[in-house]
Amino acid sequence: MKGFAMLKIGETGWIEKDRPKCGPRDAIVRPTCLAPCTSDVHTVWEGAIGDRHNMILGHEAVGIVDEVGTEVKDFKPGDRVIVPAITPDWDSEAVQRGFPSQTGGACGGWKYSNFKDGVFGEFFHVNLADNNLAHLPEGMSQEAAVMITDMMSTGFMGAENAGIELGSTVAVLGIGAVGLCGIAGAKLRGAGRIFAVGTRPVSVEVAKKYGATDIISYRDGDTAEQILDATDGEGVDAVIISGGGPDILIDACKMAKAGSKISNNNYFGKGEGEKDTLPLCRVGWGFGMADKDIITGLCPGGRVRMERLADLITYGRMDPELLVTHKFKGFDKIEEALLLMKEKPRDLIKPVVLLE
Amino acid sequence: MKGFAMLKIGETGWIEKDRPKCGPRDAIVRPTCLAPCTSDVHTVWEGAIGDRHNMILGHEAVGIVDEVGTEVKDFKPGDRVIVPAITPDWDSEAVQRGFPSQTGGACGGWKYSNFKDGVFGEFFHVNLADNNLAHLPEGMSQEAAVMITDMMSTGFMGAENAGIELGSTVAVLGIGAVGLCGIAGAKLRGAGRIFAVGTRPVSVEVAKKYGATDIISYRDGDTAEQILDATDGEGVDAVIISGGGPDILIDACKMAKAGSKISNNNYFGKGEGEKDTLPLCRVGWGFGMADKDIITGLCPGGRVRMERLADLITYGRMDPELLVTHKFKGFDKIEEALLLMKEKPRDLIKPVVLLE
Amino acid sequence: MKGFAMLKIGETGWIEKDRPKCGPRDAIVRPTCLAPCTSDVHTVWEGAIGDRHNMILGHEAVGIVDEVGTEVKDFKPGDRVIVPAITPDWDSEAVQRGFPSQTGGACGGWKYSNFKDGVFGEFFHVNLADNNLAHLPEGMSQEAAVMITDMMSTGFMGAENAGIELGSTVAVLGIGAVGLCGIAGAKLRGAGRIFAVGTRPVSVEVAKKYGATDIISYRDGDTAEQILDATDGEGVDAVIISGGGPDILIDACKMAKAGSKISNNNYFGKGEGEKDTLPLCRVGWGFGMADKDIITGLCPGGRVRMERLADLITYGRMDPELLVTHKFKGFDKIEEALLLMKEKPRDLIKPVVLLE
Amino acid sequence: MKGFAMLKIGETGWIEKDRPKCGPRDAIVRPTCLAPCTSDVHTVWEGAIGDRHNMILGHEAVGIVDEVGTEVKDFKPGDRVIVPAITPDWDSEAVQRGFPSQTGGACGGWKYSNFKDGVFGEFFHVNLADNNLAHLPEGMSQEAAVMITDMMSTGFMGAENAGIELGSTVAVLGIGAVGLCGIAGAKLRGAGRIFAVGTRPVSVEVAKKYGATDIISYRDGDTAEQILDATDGEGVDAVIISGGGPDILIDACKMAKAGSKISNNNYFGKGEGEKDTLPLCRVGWGFGMADKDIITGLCPGGRVRMERLADLITYGRMDPELLVTHKFKGFDKIEEALLLMKEKPRDLIKPVVLLE
Repeated sequence: MKGFAMLKIGETGWIEKDRPKCGPRDAIVRPTCLAPCTSDVHTVWEGAIGDRHNMILGHEAVGIVDEVGTEVKDFKPGDRVIVPAITPDWDSEAVQRGFPSQTGGACGGWKYSNFKDGVFGEFFHVNLADNNLAHLPEGMSQEAAVMITDMMSTGFMGAENAGIELGSTVAVLGIGAVGLCGIAGAKLRGAGRIFAVGTRPVSVEVAKKYGATDIISYRDGDTAEQILDATDGEGVDAVIISGGGPDILIDACKMAKAGSKISNNNYFGKGEGEKDTLPLCRVGWGFGMADKDIITGLCPGGRVRMERLADLITYGRMDPELLVTHKFKGFDKIEEALLLMKEKPRDLIKPVVLLE
Repeated sequence: MKGFAMLKIGETGWIEKDRPKCGPRDAIVRPTCLAPCTSDVHTVWEGAIGDRHNMILGHEAVGIVDEVGTEVKDFKPGDRVIVPAITPDWDSEAVQRGFPSQTGGACGGWKYSNFKDGVFGEFFHVNLADNNLAHLPEGMSQEAAVMITDMMSTGFMGAENAGIELGSTVAVLGIGAVGLCGIAGAKLRGAGRIFAVGTRPVSVEVAKKYGATDIISYRDGDTAEQILDATDGEGVDAVIISGGGPDILIDACKMAKAGSKISNNNYFGKGEGEKDTLPLCRVGWGFGMADKDIITGLCPGGRVRMERLADLITYGRMDPELLVTHKFKGFDKIEEALLLMKEKPRDLIKPVVLLE
Repeated sequence: MKGFAMLKIGETGWIEKDRPKCGPRDAIVRPTCLAPCTSDVHTVWEGAIGDRHNMILGHEAVGIVDEVGTEVKDFKPGDRVIVPAITPDWDSEAVQRGFPSQTGGACGGWKYSNFKDGVFGEFFHVNLADNNLAHLPEGMSQEAAVMITDMMSTGFMGAENAGIELGSTVAVLGIGAVGLCGIAGAKLRGAGRIFAVGTRPVSVEVAKKYGATDIISYRDGDTAEQILDATDGEGVDAVIISGGGPDILIDACKMAKAGSKISNNNYFGKGEGEKDTLPLCRVGWGFGMADKDIITGLCPGGRVRMERLADLITYGRMDPELLVTHKFKGFDKIEEALLLMKEKPRDLIKPVVLLE
Repeated sequence: MKGFAMLKIGETGWIEKDRPKCGPRDAIVRPTCLAPCTSDVHTVWEGAIGDRHNMILGHEAVGIVDEVGTEVKDFKPGDRVIVPAITPDWDSEAVQRGFPSQTGGACGGWKYSNFKDGVFGEFFHVNLADNNLAHLPEGMSQEAAVMITDMMSTGFMGAENAGIELGSTVAVLGIGAVGLCGIAGAKLRGAGRIFAVGTRPVSVEVAKKYGATDIISYRDGDTAEQILDATDGEGVDAVIISGGGPDILIDACKMAKAGSKISNNNYFGKGEGEKDTLPLCRVGWGFGMADKDIITGLCPGGRVRMERLADLITYGRMDPELLVTHKFKGFDKIEEALLLMKEKPRDLIKPVVLLE
């Protein structure tokens, strides 16, 4: 079968691979809608997770079940399914400790386009199908559903980890697709005022629709200072970091109240200096004593997560189609869509590729 | 009255000041037992919180109530009291948000030897006496009680913020008095295996009595590697940072499991570089996605905290007198005790000064 | 001054009282908008909290500051203010334990029309004005603001205590004003499907606007069974109890999943039998082992709560005016408004009385 | 093979059954140490979970692996293992919701002597061996290890769910083996004062060793009143219910502070009246508004739980052998041991049966 792959750091291309094998609890899925992700860009062109050779890319997919293992109960060939970007080994140790995204080691729940071939192939493999697939609800568009798999799950996690209370003031740093879902998630958790930090007009428009009340641009000066000014020097109850380089943590420390949460869902592809570090602001962080907790996580995966986020769409709590600015048709358009994510033209939020 | 003060950065000395005034809800206390703190050392000789002039030092005291304001109900002159290092304005905004140590701004509950004269005077002032004083229980030694005010409250907070579950594996970095209380606190929260990282024999001995099961010394190599080796590469469920310079955060990131808490109760007196930053390890921190949360806080203060920690002593859960390696007698010995904290001879954990 | 009072159990009337005295940290407020509450009905006609004599009723008010004590900093005569139903003694012990609504004993933060004269007087007293008053934001209607004081704060607490995760399925039992705010609160915390249990058409309409996706009526059969049927026997992740007699707990136990929260914000005015008890369903509650936690609380009060809920209105997250079905003009209409609450005609959700 | 079984409600006896079959991820274990449980008594003689026919009893065991399925990685025949009473289906929906003990329905993680044959057979079946077995640490006695499987895990859960903070005051109702572990657990979570409510001298002695500071007997009057008296009317921060009939909930409500947790790990085998209910005290529960949350749960199972509790023994945090008052030798003594649990002579805490 064909797949679009990372050949090595900095290089991509189409390759031929064997169709994946289906274990007794697994499924093989044929994708019907795919989306490339900024983390594919980090992986290929920044070498953020180290080298990979001839690994099929992609981890955002909906599709049709093509084959299931003998022990799979709830899915059968022909079923339309949502496939989470993160597919934990639910029967492993980290689950019992409460960290399903970290099964088998750090970020180990992230298998596609990390430890195994991703979803940009004619077929792809799903471990623990009963636990990691969700049925595509009737009437839900594929474009909406594919946004659940990573963008919504990751962006919402940013809001969930931010300890938002009803009426909290929140800042979201970065308004790419994940940041926009952070804004929507902050609203869904009950935030009052929401600062969105970013500049692209196409994203600003969606940010407002998703609940942002104030738009902050770095072009108007230091963003932390702008937010401090706007809040009479108080700062915010929660910062959600959904973009930026290492220095973004310094900004976050400065704009967070003493007594707040800094929630990171950014994938730091690069660090600073020889030691490859990420800097906190000593004074802004209150010398380590100002109750400014820094919470991290990897996109939650698994079936229940997908079903719950699908419910949010079904019941009208969130419209993820606003994220989809570019639609491609045909499997061979994956390359074009990924390069678009790399180039980030100003009218882009998120492209999808429809395969049927 | 006389007091032992910070004259300016790098300089201390005895000064004369007016006896503090007692507002309607306040108390004036005459100390009977005092202890100097490493943070006094940071404040004077590192200038960690900026300059201060002729500010009486000290924030660890038990004493006798000398005067109370007209609205004080539960205390009267002659009462023996425990005075928390942190005396929040309980009727302020940050309390309603759930962060009493941060009243009036970052670390604002820390008033003594920070925003107002400390306890190293013949008398000192207590705001909101009914809410910030606790009665010294009958039969409790002054040496034990003075350890509650900061060492136990700060060290225990390190354990409380570490998300310890019954049987968790914990590493405590630093075995000064706060680190030792972190160990005792980790045991009190139900940790199983406890790594204590430090070298001073006097502290090592107490670390074991407080519950440490493994002693790790930097002299035997990289401490994170030693702990990873000892845990078959798994690392620990929680790291409590109770000492060290900026790089200690890098060590903590490395030894923490994917899915863990890094709890800081270190006062970072110095940062790195021009931007005055504290570095996280990008890879060790899982690129920001490995569920290694960094939790901070300032020593909890107030009456209920003091009463609860006193109960732990009363009911035999903790013996803080093991921390007290040096006892001085007489008010004029405060200087000597503080200089001892600065010099840190190898047989020192914590000195106290008895005034009666 | 005049006030509308509970004369004794079962009897109300207008009485004359002295204008309340203003302590140094207090304020005296002249109401401009008032609302009666079902709990006034429980108090007077069920004697739910025991007997009271000549106690002015009411605890939902916005008004104008008429006088402030010498130590009050943030408010001055003429300021328009929102007054929380619950006005904790912020400088008391229960606050330090984390339970501000329980200061001074069970439900002790509830002072108005419980331990002291309520707000249905020409003037009323506010303890700790800086901590318990909030400025009425410019442009906010009085009808909206008065809904914050109890209905929104109590109803939202029901949702906050329900442990709602993004996409959780929730049932709200009772669709009076508090239940409707429970629905709005459930949506604000990110619930997916929301069952509203109730029958009054006027409430059903608002329930849908606030986010209810399914309306369940007891007229169509056992409500727990209906909800179990609608969820394929699974039940709900959270039940919010906002109405009903003692047996409502049995229903809640039955419809809650194994692994769920039952969040009560109902004021149980009557119990069962000689022992005055409230029954749980032994089997439905999983013999005490099915992880169906029962969470309770009293309406959160204080300034920060009021400010945060006001922000939710300011930023368009919630429109409480939908609750106000009846508006009266003039102080003397309080009696009529209260009797309306007692009678509960079918077109009533909540009446308000405007005084200017 | 032989097994000791519940023949029907009220009747037990030895039966012959086929050796259980081993699925690919399962194990078959031969017990080497067994303990009967009070819940076996509830099941057989109260019919608490309904009727069962010829079901082998027992759920507390350590043993030797006799056979493993083809996919089992971490265990092999001959391994000595600890077998949790609760063996969740880790790859099921309730795990993803955070409730592993409730997989497959209410209390569904409790399989042995509930939904399938228990451990009182020559061999027994273990589902998901890699996830549900733990290696018996070298040097740990079988008597100690068998106490982990249910008594420690259940009793400790009572303490974990009680929201204990360092220095909290706790009451434990019932001092059977589970209640005693609740006391030990409360101490392990950092409780200060611990009231133990019970009368048997043998248990009282262990209660003190495990950390109880005050012993309360119903023979000296109403237990709630005694505890209120001893705490100057304040009550306790947490109540752990580990015994008693339905009325125990009334006692718990009365002695719990406004702002507290009532943590239940009692298995309510019987209710009250026709409706089979469990009564809360309306007034003592603060009319549903006094922040007295009632938290429940089923014994946590699985491998990580067993390993963590084993660590607590290994590192000297807890000595469960104090619970073992009676030791039997030989498989055929199971009947005698179970009848002892039923009769509860005054010198009994917990019997074990050693099989080798």
